[in-house]
Amino acid sequence: MVVTLAEIVARLGGEVAGDGRIEVTAITTLDAAGPGQLSFLANPKYRAKLATTKASAVIVAPDVLKDCPTAAIVTPQPYLYFARVAQWLQPRQRPPVGIHPSAVVEGTVADSASIGANVWIGPGAEIGERVVVEANGSIGNDCHVGADSWLHPGVAMYSGCRIGARAIIHSGVVIGADGFGFARETDGSWVKIPQSGRVLIGDDVEIGANTTIDRGALEDTVIEDGVKLDNQIQIGHNVHIGAHTAMAGCVGVAGSARIGRRCTFGGAAMILGHLEIADDVNISSGTMIAKSVPNAGNYTGWVPFLEHADWLKNFSRVRHLDSMADKIRALEGRLAELEKKS
Amino acid sequence: MVVTLAEIVARLGGEVAGDGRIEVTAITTLDAAGPGQLSFLANPKYRAKLATTKASAVIVAPDVLKDCPTAAIVTPQPYLYFARVAQWLQPRQRPPVGIHPSAVVEGTVADSASIGANVWIGPGAEIGERVVVEANGSIGNDCHVGADSWLHPGVAMYSGCRIGARAIIHSGVVIGADGFGFARETDGSWVKIPQSGRVLIGDDVEIGANTTIDRGALEDTVIEDGVKLDNQIQIGHNVHIGAHTAMAGCVGVAGSARIGRRCTFGGAAMILGHLEIADDVNISSGTMIAKSVPNAGNYTGWVPFLEHADWLKNFSRVRHLDSMADKIRALEGRLAELEKKS
Amino acid sequence: MVVTLAEIVARLGGEVAGDGRIEVTAITTLDAAGPGQLSFLANPKYRAKLATTKASAVIVAPDVLKDCPTAAIVTPQPYLYFARVAQWLQPRQRPPVGIHPSAVVEGTVADSASIGANVWIGPGAEIGERVVVEANGSIGNDCHVGADSWLHPGVAMYSGCRIGARAIIHSGVVIGADGFGFARETDGSWVKIPQSGRVLIGDDVEIGANTTIDRGALEDTVIEDGVKLDNQIQIGHNVHIGAHTAMAGCVGVAGSARIGRRCTFGGAAMILGHLEIADDVNISSGTMIAKSVPNAGNYTGWVPFLEHADWLKNFSRVRHLDSMADKIRALEGRLAELEKKS
Repeated sequence: MVVTLAEIVARLGGEVAGDGRIEVTAITTLDAAGPGQLSFLANPKYRAKLATTKASAVIVAPDVLKDCPTAAIVTPQPYLYFARVAQWLQPRQRPPVGIHPSAVVEGTVADSASIGANVWIGPGAEIGERVVVEANGSIGNDCHVGADSWLHPGVAMYSGCRIGARAIIHSGVVIGADGFGFARETDGSWVKIPQSGRVLIGDDVEIGANTTIDRGALEDTVIEDGVKLDNQIQIGHNVHIGAHTAMAGCVGVAGSARIGRRCTFGGAAMILGHLEIADDVNISSGTMIAKSVPNAGNYTGWVPFLEHADWLKNFSRVRHLDSMADKIRALEGRLAELEKKS
Repeated sequence: MVVTLAEIVARLGGEVAGDGRIEVTAITTLDAAGPGQLSFLANPKYRAKLATTKASAVIVAPDVLKDCPTAAIVTPQPYLYFARVAQWLQPRQRPPVGIHPSAVVEGTVADSASIGANVWIGPGAEIGERVVVEANGSIGNDCHVGADSWLHPGVAMYSGCRIGARAIIHSGVVIGADGFGFARETDGSWVKIPQSGRVLIGDDVEIGANTTIDRGALEDTVIEDGVKLDNQIQIGHNVHIGAHTAMAGCVGVAGSARIGRRCTFGGAAMILGHLEIADDVNISSGTMIAKSVPNAGNYTGWVPFLEHADWLKNFSRVRHLDSMADKIRALEGRLAELEKKS
Repeated sequence: MVVTLAEIVARLGGEVAGDGRIEVTAITTLDAAGPGQLSFLANPKYRAKLATTKASAVIVAPDVLKDCPTAAIVTPQPYLYFARVAQWLQPRQRPPVGIHPSAVVEGTVADSASIGANVWIGPGAEIGERVVVEANGSIGNDCHVGADSWLHPGVAMYSGCRIGARAIIHSGVVIGADGFGFARETDGSWVKIPQSGRVLIGDDVEIGANTTIDRGALEDTVIEDGVKLDNQIQIGHNVHIGAHTAMAGCVGVAGSARIGRRCTFGGAAMILGHLEIADDVNISSGTMIAKSVPNAGNYTGWVPFLEHADWLKNFSRVRHLDSMADKIRALEGRLAELEKKS
């Protein structure tokens, strides 16, 4: 695919600085780009790389243009612009339309869909227009997959769950397994609570490899539009995640947590159950949220690392913080006594 | 399925308060239940919802009965009773008995079992009565799956492993992969220790989606009866987990840990290797257990979160706890000197 | 397989102490070994077990030989020697050579390879000599798997990725899913950055069950020779892991981290993105690395657990460390004043 800077701007906005007839075929980093390629400067701290790039043109913010020795596309948000150009120049290669002869299809599949080798689609399932289900996927009874969604190899979807339009579901994702619900007998053994809710996933959701989203116990687990989940995330039963919230890898969300819109969670953050988290909350990596967060803002709770010997010395003290506080209070009292006398 | 309150009590115990001929078809929450449905009050803090429920009857504890405006089933443990009713009214829909033509069966399968599309069952494997193996499962050579167990789509079981009766194994579970065992060369490279043990799983075990249980190195990894593991849990080689222990999502247990009976582990708890944990130990979410726990009880170790700016201010101090303790001791000494003089 | 001690030493080095004609058929622990079996003493703290072992011979270090009542193989590194003997005596059983009729092969497979039931191998993929791809694996377009590598059931490999020679890839591993890259719109929604890099994996790499390694965004994600990854590890896009580095289960590495050679990571360690970690760095279990580690050494950062009531008492203080430090400083000032006067 060859496009000119003028064509890009005609489609995606922004302004050309320089010759709009310059042609580009791909977009990559300032270091890697060569002649005939487009690049971008997203982080102003790499501004010095402009001087040495071999790219034919660079996407830059207005205040950076003066330092750009090549032709440029000027936009207030170069990173967002890069995302749009890359989606256009590097579209995913769709597998052929149709149902592979080795697939077992007991449900309904749109003519425009692509169903890969050894896929199973259960009775009552509905696969929408232009959906891709790659090899070895398992789509349970009465599931629904919306138009233009793409399920990579080996996705498992339990019965009755729904995915909206334009989803991207990566390999090893499990949608709709039973939530972890048991009542306890007096002898300590456990009696299973049947998990009869579903998982309902909105439009434009992306779910990373080996992430698991459990079905609700009595109600449904809900993932709203535009949510982005990275790999190896665990979402418990009855959880509700608001639109456009994003979670990095290895996050865990326990059952019945209710998370707002446009939140962000760093890697390995852990959210306990039955909490409410407001809209626009940002949780740092490695932070455990053990009570509700009613206000937007940034929240953190992890311990800095040290050289092992220093850590041993300092963290043995953590077990004695309470007595340290007591000692300080006692010192304050004794000192006040002395000060009175002196 | 339609049952009367009298029929429920005849089967599951407890007492009817009100008209035993009342019929119900399903069980759900107090908020969601409508006429013809049963509900339950498990947590006394929701007692006020009794006044407004539209349920035809409610399962309640004896001390709550006076506040219940509907017919009731009275039992000392309403949540346990709910679990039993739900299992009865909402049985799992079994797939058809028999072997799907696309499955590859090289082992032995009971006539009453259900083997789904594109399943592989290796030579020497034995699949018991009424077992369900859903689509795309892989059961290695010489494995054994006990009667009435249910393997959801995409389970992988390595050769020689055993699952008891009535297990529920969710999608993406891997049973019997090699433990992480290597000897180190002087140049820093690693030589693999062959992992020749097995995984032995008892009766009535449930294992959540994408959980992994490694085979033993020389001995076996053992999961006793009634153990319940949530999603995304990692169990290392040679681990032994006692009966009726339950672990929430994202827990990790390192190799050769020996865990007692009836323990509970909160989400993302981490257990280091070669430890012993007594019976009836409860570990909080996010807690790392780095030494043995010889006594029953509740154990915790995580840091509370704060607004990010407050966290920065307070946690930078963690690195200096040892010198803080030194300063306090020095202050105590100097103060004692002054006190002597005054 | 029956071998004599003399044959073992001829192949693997070391010296026989006692009768070199003694025959052994297997190797196991000192407790489990019986007549006709070999054992080893790797950890000197178990030296007392030598007195009671029923093994026909034991692998020991030179300084332990005097306490060994059986025949022995003497070597400075008994554990490494055990690994080599076990690999020889307990070779993995290869599945039959050839392509199972239920597999769908659109790429190129060496005649000596073993392709299992219901595997899919995409167009342009190349499977090397003696490679094993077990049941339900999915190998995307244009992938390359090097000679003697072994992919256990249910591995998913996205298009264009490469695995070197002699790899062991466990079930549920996902190689080459999209990295987690989005640009943010002003309304808080996310625009996907196409992930056009690959995953390049060197020789002699082992990857544990359900581990995920994302493809690069513009560059490649690189795993060098001899790296060993345990189960449930998440490796983000553009990460580079140096040769012979080993990571225990549940570790997470965020995008663009650059990790040195011969490093070790304890379970559930978490590495933030865009960091550099030097060669020969050892990170403790449960430690979050939030800034670069430029020097070799041991680094730790986790909190010790306590009985729950003690934890509550002590950790509530963590939120007030800054004011504790202020109080200590104030005490020091006031005390100095008094000391001047006295």
